[in-house]
Amino acid sequence: MARCLSGLTQRCQRLPRAVRGRPRPLVARSSTSRGGAEASSKDPTAPCSVEHVGYFRSCFSCRNGCPRQGSLAPNSVGVVELRQGHEVFEAPAGLSLTGLEGFSHAWLLWHFSEYQSRKMRSPRVRPPRLGGESLGVFACRSPKRPSRIGMTACRIEGVSEEGAWLRVSGVDLLDGTPILDIKPYVPRYDSFPGATVPAWMDRPSEALGHRSGVAAADVEVRFEPRALEELESVSRRSGLFRDSAAMEGTIAEVLSQDPRSRTSKKHDKQEYGFRLDNARVTCVFRRMSGDGLEALVTRVEAAE
Amino acid sequence: MARCLSGLTQRCQRLPRAVRGRPRPLVARSSTSRGGAEASSKDPTAPCSVEHVGYFRSCFSCRNGCPRQGSLAPNSVGVVELRQGHEVFEAPAGLSLTGLEGFSHAWLLWHFSEYQSRKMRSPRVRPPRLGGESLGVFACRSPKRPSRIGMTACRIEGVSEEGAWLRVSGVDLLDGTPILDIKPYVPRYDSFPGATVPAWMDRPSEALGHRSGVAAADVEVRFEPRALEELESVSRRSGLFRDSAAMEGTIAEVLSQDPRSRTSKKHDKQEYGFRLDNARVTCVFRRMSGDGLEALVTRVEAAE
Repeated sequence: MARCLSGLTQRCQRLPRAVRGRPRPLVARSSTSRGGAEASSKDPTAPCSVEHVGYFRSCFSCRNGCPRQGSLAPNSVGVVELRQGHEVFEAPAGLSLTGLEGFSHAWLLWHFSEYQSRKMRSPRVRPPRLGGESLGVFACRSPKRPSRIGMTACRIEGVSEEGAWLRVSGVDLLDGTPILDIKPYVPRYDSFPGATVPAWMDRPSEALGHRSGVAAADVEVRFEPRALEELESVSRRSGLFRDSAAMEGTIAEVLSQDPRSRTSKKHDKQEYGFRLDNARVTCVFRRMSGDGLEALVTRVEAAE
Repeated sequence: MARCLSGLTQRCQRLPRAVRGRPRPLVARSSTSRGGAEASSKDPTAPCSVEHVGYFRSCFSCRNGCPRQGSLAPNSVGVVELRQGHEVFEAPAGLSLTGLEGFSHAWLLWHFSEYQSRKMRSPRVRPPRLGGESLGVFACRSPKRPSRIGMTACRIEGVSEEGAWLRVSGVDLLDGTPILDIKPYVPRYDSFPGATVPAWMDRPSEALGHRSGVAAADVEVRFEPRALEELESVSRRSGLFRDSAAMEGTIAEVLSQDPRSRTSKKHDKQEYGFRLDNARVTCVFRRMSGDGLEALVTRVEAAE
């Protein structure tokens, strides 16, 4: 008994006493807390310092066309390139990936800073798909977050310890994004298929009374024959997509989510463009009979 | 056409050109990248600065007894207390929670600093359950991570906009942990029940050839009658648990995972203790016939 319990006592004496009733603010006492040591050893309000372990090389280089979540574009691809040269680890960085190849999926935690607007410090946001309604920043996945941490579960396509890179599919990260962490996806820990979401998550945007497009499932994507020929040619010089079918699949996934801004959705006949790896894609959205929408890809050009 | 595509062109011109073939290191060019702006605007190797939005008030105040993952102890409880007084937001912090009550689960991203050992910068770790085997830090959920970010999906038990707090269950955070972000759990984005893990994830530790305990499912938890009486009394003064059944459930969940260290597992007859909210729990682990193990709770005392 002695060893286990005395060890416990020693450890616990360094911790704050248990709090009862209405939570007391933790800020003042966090400097003595194990969990809060890093953030609050001097100033409890100082930001945490977080190492980035690498960068992401993505097929998405512009916000235009970048899906809201990685799982909405399962064919999209990218590579995590770890920082080498002992910048993060004391041994070759690729060794940190040993064993990851045994998992089918991994979480990427990353840092985004594109929303450094005046509204950054507002506790409420207006996500585009809500067509103007506002809600708490912690009730959505908007990038306008105080800590600017993004989180994406990707499918693992390949791991190279020697090259210190991880190839993944199903991504929503822009090219050059700093990667903060990689964690294996464990269904036992991470999967709650029965979890519930509020009704607005599945509500078509039309139901909001705004001319803000339709729900994802209603967009039908087609390619003009000329665009398919161009795609075949451009995809051969892609550094990320294996073949034209993979690139075509990603274009279809991106457009099926109607990635246009609220403003551009008001002009259905206007062309819409986005960049995917080395391709510049142009299409038109057209309203079909009923509630449906069609995205017709008219051109796929080399972006450089 | 003109507006959409010219807007795209403007945005893309600020971005690095697409990379082909073998990925070029992104560090050098990340200062011109949207995603990398914050981290690399001056020094591309400088750590990211991440705001913490609150602190966690947990039933776990010591590493002893704190489960490896929140979903392994679904009855455990805690409260996220947001930082108020315009420290993070320009308006009352509680407004950031508006709409979160419609979700059943939420992700907590948090910061831990307990593993600031000399081995912190090693790319490989030896998780306790692997009984001595090493693997890449990105192939496991070990706290020895370069960025020290933890990630836990919790069940939402209550939200108070006015009080700026979020009450959750199924936690693995220590008391006082800085919270970096809260995101709603969306099965469509986050749930991959068919994801696969390597065989060692489900392998009983015994199979490793070490005397390091048995798999979680083999531990049977029992309470001595006196311990149950003490639990009934102590739980009445708990600030987090609703009743003695909830506290009893969490004790059982903690012990069923065999939370002992590799060292203490070698001494089956030694007492093991941990602290849960305002209770100090003592038990003994005993080997049963066959491969099973029994945890018998002998005492539940007031911790203060």
